[in-house]
Amino acid sequence: MKAEIISIGDELLIGQVINSNQAYIAEKLNSVGIFGDKMTTIGDDENEILSAFQKAYNSHDIVTVTGGLGPTHDDITRSVVCKFFNTDSIINDEALENVKRIFARRKSVPRKINEDQALVPRNCTVIQNRLGTAPGYFFGRDGKYFIVMPGVPYEMKAMMDNFVLPFFEKHKTGLIIRHRTLKTTGIAESFLAEQIGDVHKIFSPDSGITLAFLPSSYGVRLRITAKANSVDEAENKIHNVETKLRSKIEKFIYTTGDMDLEDAVGKLLSERKLTLAIAESCTGGLIADRITNVSGSSEYFERGIITYSNKSKVDALGVPSELINQHGAVSKEVAEVMALGIRTRSNTDIGISTTGIAGPTGGSPEKPIGLVWIGYSDKNETIALQFNFGGERRIIKERAAQAALELVRRKILKITD
Amino acid sequence: MKAEIISIGDELLIGQVINSNQAYIAEKLNSVGIFGDKMTTIGDDENEILSAFQKAYNSHDIVTVTGGLGPTHDDITRSVVCKFFNTDSIINDEALENVKRIFARRKSVPRKINEDQALVPRNCTVIQNRLGTAPGYFFGRDGKYFIVMPGVPYEMKAMMDNFVLPFFEKHKTGLIIRHRTLKTTGIAESFLAEQIGDVHKIFSPDSGITLAFLPSSYGVRLRITAKANSVDEAENKIHNVETKLRSKIEKFIYTTGDMDLEDAVGKLLSERKLTLAIAESCTGGLIADRITNVSGSSEYFERGIITYSNKSKVDALGVPSELINQHGAVSKEVAEVMALGIRTRSNTDIGISTTGIAGPTGGSPEKPIGLVWIGYSDKNETIALQFNFGGERRIIKERAAQAALELVRRKILKITD
Repeated sequence: MKAEIISIGDELLIGQVINSNQAYIAEKLNSVGIFGDKMTTIGDDENEILSAFQKAYNSHDIVTVTGGLGPTHDDITRSVVCKFFNTDSIINDEALENVKRIFARRKSVPRKINEDQALVPRNCTVIQNRLGTAPGYFFGRDGKYFIVMPGVPYEMKAMMDNFVLPFFEKHKTGLIIRHRTLKTTGIAESFLAEQIGDVHKIFSPDSGITLAFLPSSYGVRLRITAKANSVDEAENKIHNVETKLRSKIEKFIYTTGDMDLEDAVGKLLSERKLTLAIAESCTGGLIADRITNVSGSSEYFERGIITYSNKSKVDALGVPSELINQHGAVSKEVAEVMALGIRTRSNTDIGISTTGIAGPTGGSPEKPIGLVWIGYSDKNETIALQFNFGGERRIIKERAAQAALELVRRKILKITD
Repeated sequence: MKAEIISIGDELLIGQVINSNQAYIAEKLNSVGIFGDKMTTIGDDENEILSAFQKAYNSHDIVTVTGGLGPTHDDITRSVVCKFFNTDSIINDEALENVKRIFARRKSVPRKINEDQALVPRNCTVIQNRLGTAPGYFFGRDGKYFIVMPGVPYEMKAMMDNFVLPFFEKHKTGLIIRHRTLKTTGIAESFLAEQIGDVHKIFSPDSGITLAFLPSSYGVRLRITAKANSVDEAENKIHNVETKLRSKIEKFIYTTGDMDLEDAVGKLLSERKLTLAIAESCTGGLIADRITNVSGSSEYFERGIITYSNKSKVDALGVPSELINQHGAVSKEVAEVMALGIRTRSNTDIGISTTGIAGPTGGSPEKPIGLVWIGYSDKNETIALQFNFGGERRIIKERAAQAALELVRRKILKITD
């Protein structure tokens, strides 16, 4: 089954709000074998909305709509949906109770415009909204589905998770689509493609398999997609392709699926009962921020220090001033002493460090913007590796943080180049 | 002039990537008086792309396209653009030099698939890409514009800022639209609305002015939009509304426009020649990360320390163990000593600290998830404020970091509640 995902709202069209609803809906529909093959965003304009509804409904089995269900004058989605299905609005008692309950919690009484939030198109199935005042609408006619939800992300998500997905789980038919994503880092897209070689030696063009390369500043993700008649067949196809890919690029893959590199590194540290401390200069706390996004990180993350001034490198890490004077703060020597210093001072198994030039100022011909030294220290060795990252300040920080985490991963797994 | 903003990529359709490009392009076009009235996202499929191009080009003055310009087999945008304009590809010398330059920086040599990135449709104006290997294409014919850019956000942004916007700045006509956003934090949407009162006492309904409330985990943004016949008239209208709004809510506004709170705080520190050090527990480095996203932050940011273990709070900040045993690490007392400790040990003018329970585990009835103490210390006072944030782990980190930065801003400006 194919879906079109429609978002309504002037705030989206002027770019003030980034639309995360479409990605959420697409991913969730995908998980029940429904492929969103088009996303459309339009403003709060009756003719535009009607025209978008008509086109989407004609060419898709499923249409989802979010946005424009609020109480103010610019929210016209309900009335346009009524026009589209040639019906009128009625008060839904359960939705009205919900509006009153929400206002009571705020120690307030709903006014007419708030109570009108309980109006729904006649003959739709109402999707109740415990988290807000606007209910959703579900129409199923002649094997086609038209689903309207609020634009507030957490209200929409609750409706997707509690109503829409369970419905399609029960009613799904036809081809199954499954994805698996192999996340790589530390290798450019073109080198990865070369290591993999001709993809049609891995799977034939008519096998129902596709392979996509998705680059970002964190690395290249490889997405394997399989279409099949059953979940088992799809999973088997993916497994075969994954095995063949791993035989060529295993060491670059840090995880599959939703995990980030900090999750993968955290898992390794936790499993092996290793502790980590971090001394950051150019990454400015980003590595620690990512490490501490992982629940349970207090088990292995002892401390981080952001030594932005030279004085702090001397005081807090024991980097000799002469070393900084002789080689500069951005140098192999300083990166090594920083990694060693944070490890010994915090008494952890592993210490890592970053020192570099994130720009946009501070570069020189010898030490250009993007030059970053990453240090690593454990009880057996203390080293530093040189990187030259492209991009602007934030991108350089992101790439350096990713490279530092990847260095920890490879050292723990004893992966060599 | 009206624009349609098209994104291409299967990764968008399966929801693996949140599309931030459309919002960026829409906002920037808007700033030169071009209204994006539709956004469309489609997959890497030739027929779908051709059909979307045709529909968009027929009904809009401007069409922007991003995505599908990479070197691998699933990147087909260039060939579809050639088909659409009934032309072929040629190597662009400057783009080829750029590919070689980028590979030289990586101490590597481009292969055929990399050099093919320098292929561009014949007869387009090439938008060079200093940050990546794929150039953009600009077609201007019969008063219509068709613009193709890479999907990598920072490459697209550089092309928008350095090529597309300057072009339309020079060629714009018709009604002018101007926005200004007042960013507030530390006040809920409904309280802000109450402080402002009836908006039509500030501007009349037919004045060409609109005011939008845009809440996020960082605070509520107020967007003033003015339509007018000239830039001066629009700016005047906005100025009048802004002045009236400021008379009611001045202290909550930390900046207007593109600045983030870390920019505003950095500017204050820099102007007043104050230095800052940070001791983070529950925010895990996020405050330091944000502070160091600002170019020039090394001028006022001395160091940060992420004391995730109790031992590190004792060693690195001088928090007495007994204090932690008596009150717990998440307490007013510990937050205060952390702020004082980081300030005195780093010899800065201001020290701030965070200690709290980010979840999803570790909460208790007395100290629930979301409880955060934020400490502040300068030469005159050392205090800590209690917050109770809602949301999951990352949201709690974000809200705590925002509240800590806002505390610094208000202390410097001597704003009291």
